[in-house]
Amino acid sequence: MTKKITIAIDAMGGENAPKKNIEGINIFLKRNSKKNDFLILIFGDETILKEELIKNNIPLEKIKIVHTNSVVSDEETPLTAVKNSKNTSMWNSVRSQLDGAADISLSAGNTGVLLVISRMILKTMKDVSKPALAGLWPSKKGMSVVLDLGANIECDEKNLIDFTEMGSALYKSIFPEQKPIVSLLNIGSEEIKGTEVLKKTYSQLKKLDQKNNFIFNGYIEGDKLMDGESNVIITDGFTGNVALKTAEGTAKYITDSLKESLSENIITKASVILSYFSLKKFKSKLDPRKYNGAIFLGLNGPVVKSHGGTDALGFYYSIDLCYRIIKGGLMDQIKSNLSHLNDQS
Amino acid sequence: MTKKITIAIDAMGGENAPKKNIEGINIFLKRNSKKNDFLILIFGDETILKEELIKNNIPLEKIKIVHTNSVVSDEETPLTAVKNSKNTSMWNSVRSQLDGAADISLSAGNTGVLLVISRMILKTMKDVSKPALAGLWPSKKGMSVVLDLGANIECDEKNLIDFTEMGSALYKSIFPEQKPIVSLLNIGSEEIKGTEVLKKTYSQLKKLDQKNNFIFNGYIEGDKLMDGESNVIITDGFTGNVALKTAEGTAKYITDSLKESLSENIITKASVILSYFSLKKFKSKLDPRKYNGAIFLGLNGPVVKSHGGTDALGFYYSIDLCYRIIKGGLMDQIKSNLSHLNDQS
Repeated sequence: MTKKITIAIDAMGGENAPKKNIEGINIFLKRNSKKNDFLILIFGDETILKEELIKNNIPLEKIKIVHTNSVVSDEETPLTAVKNSKNTSMWNSVRSQLDGAADISLSAGNTGVLLVISRMILKTMKDVSKPALAGLWPSKKGMSVVLDLGANIECDEKNLIDFTEMGSALYKSIFPEQKPIVSLLNIGSEEIKGTEVLKKTYSQLKKLDQKNNFIFNGYIEGDKLMDGESNVIITDGFTGNVALKTAEGTAKYITDSLKESLSENIITKASVILSYFSLKKFKSKLDPRKYNGAIFLGLNGPVVKSHGGTDALGFYYSIDLCYRIIKGGLMDQIKSNLSHLNDQS
Repeated sequence: MTKKITIAIDAMGGENAPKKNIEGINIFLKRNSKKNDFLILIFGDETILKEELIKNNIPLEKIKIVHTNSVVSDEETPLTAVKNSKNTSMWNSVRSQLDGAADISLSAGNTGVLLVISRMILKTMKDVSKPALAGLWPSKKGMSVVLDLGANIECDEKNLIDFTEMGSALYKSIFPEQKPIVSLLNIGSEEIKGTEVLKKTYSQLKKLDQKNNFIFNGYIEGDKLMDGESNVIITDGFTGNVALKTAEGTAKYITDSLKESLSENIITKASVILSYFSLKKFKSKLDPRKYNGAIFLGLNGPVVKSHGGTDALGFYYSIDLCYRIIKGGLMDQIKSNLSHLNDQS
């Protein structure tokens, strides 16, 4: 019997926890009822969690509750977290990776605290200069991986190269059939554009392209992020965070404007009924819950951050992401990719 | 008689020039037929321009053709421009500001070339550390000004402070009744977030807030750019360019997806007829042509860059922007704002 994929879930983090977390687990269990290759560890208050499990009629054979007394408070900051977060549900779920009890952990709690304690508990991998936060980005052809989304506000070329190898490994673990096409986010597509760090990264990626981990596609501009021509998009954490939030804000502005226009009067409301299925498909394609889950890469074990405000379905998507990442052998992929970097010297 | 607002237009720059440029001028003349406070100088090949003017039945009393033999070629780069662009329609329209013949110039030609030759001809204003490219950004409450959009890929706090004073002056020249609310683009809203440059800029802007040129509203994140709570958003040219293009790409992705969904079958097509007017209003609200025109600030005279690919209506909007900026006294506003900076020392 091969080892089961074990996912440690902080059941107490995020809005409406643990209700939405347990409901998300329930969706995952239902959609994967025929699979026997996984186990879910649920961290939180045993009494409350048991109640939620019973309420949802959740069968218990693929889950295990690990009782924890406390929860990371909303007021906690990255600065105070290490002192105050020990033995919380978040802390213990991450720590379970340390002794091999889990392969990956997931939380919808405070992002800053999760990054700090993950780094502290799991430590940065050998050969990785800085860990990075990677996200899934919708595109015309499916989805891409973008990193860093905010773990490092300033990056040098060594960091960006590491991000490329880790991001490519992540993409391969999710889409095993494809060799990732990598682009570097810049403000022009010509080779001479951009900062010194970007130019140095560009010339190194051109060489690394031949190592066969990825195909380097040069620079990409912000307006091409969603074209789907690139699978892995590399940037520093400041730019990545601004790009991500600007895209979210723009999407919200447009869909709000559309909703407003379509609910203006009785005729437009009637038109919505006619186009119900198409609009539903449109909405589904853009549904941010499908892309829920940022992956913290470069530690001795992957940690996934779910959006705090997502619902049960969104939380389900990040559990599914955890499952796929581990099934796709993320950690081995990262190690293999990074070893190519060392060959180089 | 007060001096007329004089706008120098490069009629030969951009796609479909000079046709769309002349048609854009025609729209402007029609919409402002009762005004007598402006004059338009049109730079380009006299024979071709005359033909276009006749074709459009354009009355000649408010325009003047200034003949130029050559045009900036599409292949020109910022590096070769100074050598090869002399006496082109772009060059001469910018130069006309130097001898006082025009108050502002407008081109839809090559952006890089326009920035280089504008800087060369008009020179940077005394007390300005770096000129910047400002753009109009749609928001829930109308429009905001964002800068820098790509003129400077690396900026220090002195640059960002200058951008703030210039951007506030621009906003006041377009919307004279409002005192601009300024925010600094960052990846978090807490005071301790961001790079050292941002933190220094933050603390200086807090002090400058009392000088009465603007209200400083702290940091803003990418997802709040379109909320309309801030009128002037300050960032370095790299981040600003990525944010702008990411917003454009996201908007295109969403509207393309919507179009696709709504043209799926006969029923959805019928529904579009019912919601025709609402969708039209939706489209009009998001129409990028309304925000066409980036303003190059910090030189001894303002230069406006129209999108190269826009049509006659888009070009009209940037002529209108030129008119409003000069009527609002942009250059005096900038000088007055910058003088406050000097008071400080």
